[in-house]
Amino acid sequence: MTLADMTAERDPSGSVALAVDLGGTKVEAALVTAEGVVVDGSAHRAPTGPDAGRRALEDAVDRVVLASIAHLPDGSALVGVGVGSAGPVDLGRGTVSPKNLPRLHGFDLRTHVARLLPDAPVVVRLDGTCIALAEHWLGATRGTENSMAMIVSTGVGGGIILHGRLIAGRSGNAGHIGQVQIASRVPGESADDATLERIASGPRSVAWARTRGWDGHTGEELAVDAAAGDPVARSAVVRSATAVGQAIASAATLLDLEAVAVGGGFTAVSTDYLDLVRVAVQDAIVLDYAAGVVVTGSALDGAGPILGAAALVHRPEALGLPPLDPMHHPRRRSLAR
Amino acid sequence: MTLADMTAERDPSGSVALAVDLGGTKVEAALVTAEGVVVDGSAHRAPTGPDAGRRALEDAVDRVVLASIAHLPDGSALVGVGVGSAGPVDLGRGTVSPKNLPRLHGFDLRTHVARLLPDAPVVVRLDGTCIALAEHWLGATRGTENSMAMIVSTGVGGGIILHGRLIAGRSGNAGHIGQVQIASRVPGESADDATLERIASGPRSVAWARTRGWDGHTGEELAVDAAAGDPVARSAVVRSATAVGQAIASAATLLDLEAVAVGGGFTAVSTDYLDLVRVAVQDAIVLDYAAGVVVTGSALDGAGPILGAAALVHRPEALGLPPLDPMHHPRRRSLAR
Repeated sequence: MTLADMTAERDPSGSVALAVDLGGTKVEAALVTAEGVVVDGSAHRAPTGPDAGRRALEDAVDRVVLASIAHLPDGSALVGVGVGSAGPVDLGRGTVSPKNLPRLHGFDLRTHVARLLPDAPVVVRLDGTCIALAEHWLGATRGTENSMAMIVSTGVGGGIILHGRLIAGRSGNAGHIGQVQIASRVPGESADDATLERIASGPRSVAWARTRGWDGHTGEELAVDAAAGDPVARSAVVRSATAVGQAIASAATLLDLEAVAVGGGFTAVSTDYLDLVRVAVQDAIVLDYAAGVVVTGSALDGAGPILGAAALVHRPEALGLPPLDPMHHPRRRSLAR
Repeated sequence: MTLADMTAERDPSGSVALAVDLGGTKVEAALVTAEGVVVDGSAHRAPTGPDAGRRALEDAVDRVVLASIAHLPDGSALVGVGVGSAGPVDLGRGTVSPKNLPRLHGFDLRTHVARLLPDAPVVVRLDGTCIALAEHWLGATRGTENSMAMIVSTGVGGGIILHGRLIAGRSGNAGHIGQVQIASRVPGESADDATLERIASGPRSVAWARTRGWDGHTGEELAVDAAAGDPVARSAVVRSATAVGQAIASAATLLDLEAVAVGGGFTAVSTDYLDLVRVAVQDAIVLDYAAGVVVTGSALDGAGPILGAAALVHRPEALGLPPLDPMHHPRRRSLAR
């Protein structure tokens, strides 16, 4: 018996969301139930990347969407499509311009997806805000009203929930914590280089260590050497975590946050990475109320973007929208392929 | 004919709010109509200050409240009391702990005011957030959905409105932009000294200039000498404005803001202070969407805190509360003195 069968048996009238995540290295799609369960067999992915042409990227989106939707369980209803995208985005125009997919800039992702599924409402949001929504729904910030989620990886991104509601901002780009200034630049670096991503990301940490004589090339090598006691590798790890902590301190002060969930591949560079972040948060905070912010690891890791995209459908109240009315959505119909 | 008479004639059933602002140097109270007009004769103030004892401070609050309420126009109804307070605050407990009024820490300001006006609902919020609300209601950020207001004076504070709603955060302290980190520290200063207020406030700017050989003592002297071409005084002005601009860049990036209103006495230190801020904002922004943030002067200046406190009553929708129902509030009754 597959998970899809189980889901169908357990909740024969189940509402299912199609979740799509468009990122700099891959695009993913999956069907997700209202309980946050990925329907068995429905998760599909295709590569993207900065060198891909526009047509190839559009085809990749189509391919994962159609492969995923084919797994809609009998008796389930597709109640909507949630799409997370690498930013920046322009929600007013409905377009996305992922930094690492230059050929796709100005892409009308909403209309592109909607043409495949003409009866389902499609909601697009920044991927970082989807991750915040996922942690708030099913993960590390569940039960809080004011939280942030962060990803530290090849880039540094995030999303913010305040008073229980996803913060989009004017154009949908709120949550770009990677481009916030922090104080931890070293003498000789310019203020331009004092934004979080340029200090703390995996590639920047590797590059920083190399300028100081370390001769590895990857985050994995940095992790091994830091664990083995290489002082430069270890310094690169501490420098990244400290910068992340300083940015969290600023955000927790400015927004009076309860909790911050930190995930992303580079946080695995050291087993004490989160501890280093927590120390830096406390060192940088100057007002008592902010010191109560709880810093945790992500509870969802790689599943965050897809679960968050699904939350755009299943948790409309967090977007400031009225709750889904099932009568206003197509139910129990077959989807044209 | 007084303004109070005019108000009463124009709107004989007018709803009036009592607005109170408790700050580090003074406490003020005034009656404010639903149109944002201060009732003639109703504005009263008393000094506070770090050396004042708790009883004296409590008496000062009572004095301005009672002096103000005596001017309630005949036929008008006091529909509520809005109170802004210097922070930090603890809205969960209902207490305030103004940084510069150490004897008053943990003060239950809401209950204290409510005992004077037992039939009126009392709402307390951080003063910075009141200023944001005032600019949004009547001032420089009117018509926007995502904005920040800042004060640069003896301290640096602020408040945030996102999606048309005042952001309070967990304990009511969201908006403390003065304690956000920025990159503009000079070599030799510690990261602790890289928060905005410690760089950009009036007293800190004066102190910074003095360590570099300038021999004045006040912001006014700094203004005169900077205008006369003293290079150290001018550098202190640029340094403050640059730090303010860097903090705005970070906030506009993180929150995708439309507009920021900058006020406070120290912004008058130079006629081009706001221009310097705008240059620094653009220099520090690394993502295009954030560059559209509009930086303006305050349209309300000294009236901001009182009008914002009144907005806590007259604009409940901005607090996420349902609109005022006049049937649930006392109307047209005399107030016990």
